[in-house]
Amino acid sequence: MTTVHIPGEDEVPADVAEVFADIRRTFAMSFVPNMFKVMAHNPAYLKASWQRVKVVMGPGLIERKTKEMLATAVSATNGCDYCVKAHTAALRAMGTCDGEIVELMAVVDLFSGFNKLLEGLQVEPDIGVAKRA
Amino acid sequence: MTTVHIPGEDEVPADVAEVFADIRRTFAMSFVPNMFKVMAHNPAYLKASWQRVKVVMGPGLIERKTKEMLATAVSATNGCDYCVKAHTAALRAMGTCDGEIVELMAVVDLFSGFNKLLEGLQVEPDIGVAKRA
Amino acid sequence: MTTVHIPGEDEVPADVAEVFADIRRTFAMSFVPNMFKVMAHNPAYLKASWQRVKVVMGPGLIERKTKEMLATAVSATNGCDYCVKAHTAALRAMGTCDGEIVELMAVVDLFSGFNKLLEGLQVEPDIGVAKRA
Amino acid sequence: MTTVHIPGEDEVPADVAEVFADIRRTFAMSFVPNMFKVMAHNPAYLKASWQRVKVVMGPGLIERKTKEMLATAVSATNGCDYCVKAHTAALRAMGTCDGEIVELMAVVDLFSGFNKLLEGLQVEPDIGVAKRA
Amino acid sequence: MTTVHIPGEDEVPADVAEVFADIRRTFAMSFVPNMFKVMAHNPAYLKASWQRVKVVMGPGLIERKTKEMLATAVSATNGCDYCVKAHTAALRAMGTCDGEIVELMAVVDLFSGFNKLLEGLQVEPDIGVAKRA
Amino acid sequence: MTTVHIPGEDEVPADVAEVFADIRRTFAMSFVPNMFKVMAHNPAYLKASWQRVKVVMGPGLIERKTKEMLATAVSATNGCDYCVKAHTAALRAMGTCDGEIVELMAVVDLFSGFNKLLEGLQVEPDIGVAKRA
Repeated sequence: MTTVHIPGEDEVPADVAEVFADIRRTFAMSFVPNMFKVMAHNPAYLKASWQRVKVVMGPGLIERKTKEMLATAVSATNGCDYCVKAHTAALRAMGTCDGEIVELMAVVDLFSGFNKLLEGLQVEPDIGVAKRA
Repeated sequence: MTTVHIPGEDEVPADVAEVFADIRRTFAMSFVPNMFKVMAHNPAYLKASWQRVKVVMGPGLIERKTKEMLATAVSATNGCDYCVKAHTAALRAMGTCDGEIVELMAVVDLFSGFNKLLEGLQVEPDIGVAKRA
Repeated sequence: MTTVHIPGEDEVPADVAEVFADIRRTFAMSFVPNMFKVMAHNPAYLKASWQRVKVVMGPGLIERKTKEMLATAVSATNGCDYCVKAHTAALRAMGTCDGEIVELMAVVDLFSGFNKLLEGLQVEPDIGVAKRA
Repeated sequence: MTTVHIPGEDEVPADVAEVFADIRRTFAMSFVPNMFKVMAHNPAYLKASWQRVKVVMGPGLIERKTKEMLATAVSATNGCDYCVKAHTAALRAMGTCDGEIVELMAVVDLFSGFNKLLEGLQVEPDIGVAKRA
Repeated sequence: MTTVHIPGEDEVPADVAEVFADIRRTFAMSFVPNMFKVMAHNPAYLKASWQRVKVVMGPGLIERKTKEMLATAVSATNGCDYCVKAHTAALRAMGTCDGEIVELMAVVDLFSGFNKLLEGLQVEPDIGVAKRA
Repeated sequence: MTTVHIPGEDEVPADVAEVFADIRRTFAMSFVPNMFKVMAHNPAYLKASWQRVKVVMGPGLIERKTKEMLATAVSATNGCDYCVKAHTAALRAMGTCDGEIVELMAVVDLFSGFNKLLEGLQVEPDIGVAKRA
């Protein structure tokens, strides 16, 4: 159970309600995720965080679907159930199939293993790495 | 310093040398990364790992550049200097610019933060998550 | 489900029962947390761990409430549900409100994100860091 | 070595230079930390991140020194050398002594250990946790 | 709930069914673990992963029970419920008692704590470490 | 560089010097590891930690070499250079060869990967896990 009160969408002040409306609009969602609702206990933090989500996940040099894949991979690596579920749902809404999700996680599996191996053997970076063709 | 001896490419048995040649050929590299060299202390493990790298990083449903981005993101999340350097070098070889790398890491930053926030508040998954449009 | 038997407070030997009594007394708790109960399978480990808890969480240079905040932040970062719940409960017992808990987790969010960003870009420490005013 | 170019304070556009000036002013620092400099490759991300730093680390319900302790503890738990050094320097500038820093890390040590123990034994939360007095 | 479909043992193609049969035979299990079932969405990944499991967990220089202990310790450190349960079950099947499991986790507890302490204080490696007798 | 002063063995009070002597004696080492030296800033914490090391690493149900392997595996998983080096040195002093160390890290690699895969796909525990033969 969430350790703080999750405010209902109708019990928040006007400025928070505006952010909530922007979240629903931007992501074309019928609800405001609990993550943003709990941030309402600190409206300035909610606003700054939402602004940053729009900047980071909005149009840029990397396409949106790749960013959702990255978000899912990072969340798997950090072990966050909530985010894995939320971003897998986002990928599903973009038409991602089971095979693609398993392939994505195969990459997470492969390199998470290698990451620890290299640490465990204290392997030095390859001198040639900058010369890679 | 690596905790085990890093065998030179010329001091390994023939079956290991064959894997080394396949690694250089597959990735069009002028050297065998230290990660594979240390695996030579256990040839069966080297072979099985290299086979898995070819399967996971080879042609599939997700394109190669996206996989390199995922590898870099996962390695950043796990805190592996060696892999961050190696996969950033691979991205560079594919023409990735500074702006794209910073945007990639902005996604890692954003969700690594949210991952811990959600854990720290024990936020429950959204009931509506499956209904997302 | 816990992977080992959780011994009841009445099925432990006298020396373990004494530690249990000291835990209840020290923290003014009506029960012995499961964490200490499972340690009873190794009484020397229980005693040494409880002694260390008393030293680390007892009076020192940092006040108790700050230590509970640190414990909650560390547990969120490590992803431990049990500890997040236990230390949030301890903070609640000290009168901590929802706003304070969200502010605490905003700090965890902010720096967990930056931690991974810095790793992902391999950013060098600032030369000026020691000269900071 | 940082994987992207670290722009000098004099080679950035006017809007980025303004953020840099605000950072130096706010933290009374003689330099802009490399972390913010690398963000300059994506000015919108820099601005949104800096805004969030000001909100999270600015005046609130938790005092500034406690927030720096939390930042140091979180960075130690995530294993970020850059941040550990930066926030320890900030604590030093506030007059924190060796004994206080070791006591802070003793809390990180104690609970990081317990976090993994509880995961490793899959210990269930205490039913009595909400009733804690 | 698993984010991808878990294929039944009777709905997979012949080559996957063969791997499944080999898994049941090798581990003398009456079922195929869900982990391998979800890999069936990518048969080449399943085969390469299963081959690697056989190599790493099969006969070598370290005995099987020690490897199961290592697997349980690593899974506790990474915070993976599924693996902690699976490998504790494997240890139980080898006759491991409650006391041994708690002693195993005491080691995980002790060093996970020290790992973070050393990071948090940026302690330099001992010069004498190579000379240790 | 260590963020706190590392006290020399000759500048500590008598009770700390006694612990230092016990450390050198117990591990048959010619020096006191920096980890214990920095703890000297908080003698009660040093004493309680050293007492716990003796209990956890001393004679019990698991043999010493296996415990050193577990310590190395846990430290690799947590990404602690200092501990990886220290415990690999301890394993070397017990006669562990390169092949054994690589095999140990192959286990860390394999399961660290699987740990993240299972999290990333939210795979449910096997119902049959308790029935494993």
